[in-house]
Amino acid sequence: MQSSLRLGVAGLGTVGASVVKLLARHADDLAIRCGRPIVLRAVCARDRTKDRGFSLAHVNWFQDPVKLAMSPDIDVFVELIGGASGAAEASVRAALDAGKHVVTANKALLARHGVELAALAEKRGISLNFEAAVAGGIPIIKTLREALAGNQVSRVYGILNGTCNYILTRMEREKLSFETCLKDAQALGYAETDPTFDIGGFDTAHKLALLTALAFGSQIDIDSIEIDGISRITLADIEAADELGYRIKLLGIAEMGPNGIEQRVHPTMVPKSSAIARIDGVLNAVAVDADYVGELILVGPGAGGNATASSVVSDIADVARGTALTNMMGRPAGNMQPYRRNATERLQSGYYVRLSVYDRPGALAAIVARLAERDISIESIVQRSRAPRADAPGMHARDVPQPVILISYETSERAMSEALDQIRADGHVSEPPQFLRIEQL
Amino acid sequence: MQSSLRLGVAGLGTVGASVVKLLARHADDLAIRCGRPIVLRAVCARDRTKDRGFSLAHVNWFQDPVKLAMSPDIDVFVELIGGASGAAEASVRAALDAGKHVVTANKALLARHGVELAALAEKRGISLNFEAAVAGGIPIIKTLREALAGNQVSRVYGILNGTCNYILTRMEREKLSFETCLKDAQALGYAETDPTFDIGGFDTAHKLALLTALAFGSQIDIDSIEIDGISRITLADIEAADELGYRIKLLGIAEMGPNGIEQRVHPTMVPKSSAIARIDGVLNAVAVDADYVGELILVGPGAGGNATASSVVSDIADVARGTALTNMMGRPAGNMQPYRRNATERLQSGYYVRLSVYDRPGALAAIVARLAERDISIESIVQRSRAPRADAPGMHARDVPQPVILISYETSERAMSEALDQIRADGHVSEPPQFLRIEQL
Repeated sequence: MQSSLRLGVAGLGTVGASVVKLLARHADDLAIRCGRPIVLRAVCARDRTKDRGFSLAHVNWFQDPVKLAMSPDIDVFVELIGGASGAAEASVRAALDAGKHVVTANKALLARHGVELAALAEKRGISLNFEAAVAGGIPIIKTLREALAGNQVSRVYGILNGTCNYILTRMEREKLSFETCLKDAQALGYAETDPTFDIGGFDTAHKLALLTALAFGSQIDIDSIEIDGISRITLADIEAADELGYRIKLLGIAEMGPNGIEQRVHPTMVPKSSAIARIDGVLNAVAVDADYVGELILVGPGAGGNATASSVVSDIADVARGTALTNMMGRPAGNMQPYRRNATERLQSGYYVRLSVYDRPGALAAIVARLAERDISIESIVQRSRAPRADAPGMHARDVPQPVILISYETSERAMSEALDQIRADGHVSEPPQFLRIEQL
Repeated sequence: MQSSLRLGVAGLGTVGASVVKLLARHADDLAIRCGRPIVLRAVCARDRTKDRGFSLAHVNWFQDPVKLAMSPDIDVFVELIGGASGAAEASVRAALDAGKHVVTANKALLARHGVELAALAEKRGISLNFEAAVAGGIPIIKTLREALAGNQVSRVYGILNGTCNYILTRMEREKLSFETCLKDAQALGYAETDPTFDIGGFDTAHKLALLTALAFGSQIDIDSIEIDGISRITLADIEAADELGYRIKLLGIAEMGPNGIEQRVHPTMVPKSSAIARIDGVLNAVAVDADYVGELILVGPGAGGNATASSVVSDIADVARGTALTNMMGRPAGNMQPYRRNATERLQSGYYVRLSVYDRPGALAAIVARLAERDISIESIVQRSRAPRADAPGMHARDVPQPVILISYETSERAMSEALDQIRADGHVSEPPQFLRIEQL
């Protein structure tokens, strides 16, 4: 048996603690699989006195992650601090400079500095592994980087944020408002006190940026992602989607088009019959369309200490076995192609539109005419006259806006935006129109 | 760039031809990813003159796969001949003896000789890769062997035969008989002229044997698999399942129990709400339950030249990169534990039972009593009186058997078999009882 592989773990939060426990619980099996023991030599965390449910008596304690990263006592630096800069960035750079393999779950750091760090690792002939950075326990990095090496990918998309999927699933199942579901997600620990990163789509965008680069061999470009979150989704949208045979999911989508790559994160109407529509609650799913394999879908837990630890340890095991790639993105960093963006207005898609229309003669005709002016054809339209609200005595029916739901055939985002702006300016609607892309997946 | 990796491909059927085409089409990208060109040096097939849509002008032709396997001109022997013995076995052994890496799609060979061949490869420090042997384009071997290295697996199961799934899906969707769907599957090329290997569950069993060994670190033991195929499934079963909220799928299931491993292949009632119930047509799906990752499901094409070629080339790329494992099963061959079988009668499961009962007073009471004698509790029972058939004039209603559908609570296979034997012996039923396991997945 070879000499042991020595780890330094920086960050002992939920994931870090799970990694330490996993390594202890499965130490014997891992040593057999990898042909050598994997030993925890050093850790670094904010609070040394905190009870984490395991002893660190025989492990070196570091206050400074940069010092840990450079310690001659370790072979692999496991970065579980998080954040695009600060201690995480400094310690990962220090580890690579010192010739240590790095295993990280840090999507923000890699989305910002991935290409540069990949080049650094490559120059040293060491590994920079990041399976845990995208979709928790789902081995999508290994799948894209290794299992699909013989494929040209045309599209990768998925549900990459469990918090958003939990909220949308509960809204649909229990007919609750967005606000109620968000509060519950916070109470259950699924969402942060400031939930913007999750519900605004930014977490999904970080993960998508990495998947895009892996799928298409391009440089990582998070700034080219069009990002739209789920906070504008109402129960009325969820119910209309249901009636029309759709569900609403926050998707991250990257497609290779004739003019370049398109990356976008937005709430999407997906047909109920599609596989992605059936991913409920905190689960994640990633689908890949590629020329030889066809369509592949991976479903599993996208977060949580144990599932994420499974991915972290998979990366460590590859290093222990000596089979980890030294090309972080599955190809030389110098070969990652400059990102070429496919302009969004070129994208054609069907749209779902929900309008609150004043019930006046000619209003609907005027709306339809505005769409026709932009060559937008309507696949279906649903208008239901509601009785005036009880809380509005004496109010005339025509002053009470009525919901109108439209499904359009394929059109461009620009045409739809312009038509809706015009409809709003015409004064027939009581609030800004809601519209969502429809994807036929 | 390193020197090129030289391949010899034996077998140019659907998969072999797809592999040759893929290597040509993506040659440049593969060379970049792997850091070296992958070149086809030699092939071997039955018919040299056949037009396969590509030129073999610059490739050495071998008549004998064993000679190809030993050729000093190749580094990797790609075995796509098939079969547990004969030319496939002889050539793989010759290649390993000659120190060539082997990539194979041959489930039958590995299910029979896998442990021995793994030891042989290991001794030589070379790779024996077999991603394409299980579930076509789905990277389940890499996932179990590498991505889940930090997990203890408790169960692995899946839809591993596209032909059976195609037949069951069509029976359900179009209310057709088993025989009609099988004929269509044969006409479409999904099923062989002798379909026994697919519909009898044997193909699924070969694949399950490999998944079991990978999941549990055990030796491969295909002879311990309880195998039952789908030819006894009738449209009446499919319709009853549908009414009761289930679908019928041919599953391969391997579970770690307190007394050892249980492997079985059988048509299974699965709740419509489960992910596995929604896998339709020729698709495959593999689910893994493990202690850290939780549940992971991979869905994709389980057969077809291109999808299978994707897996073959993934194995070749790992060799080219120098990152292929030299432990075929993810651990030393000598460490694969002797297979310990969990006796089937210990398994508890709910059952679906369909009986054709003569409509005589007391018949149902007698049946229920026979089940109660074996401590089998009934969750639900459906009896529908049908009118006597028009083609049986003068026949009394009580002579026309009526369908009775039972769902039992958990019980043992032995208790259920014995009770049904007794019910048959009592003379209340007109044909052998149909019964299927229910799995809560």
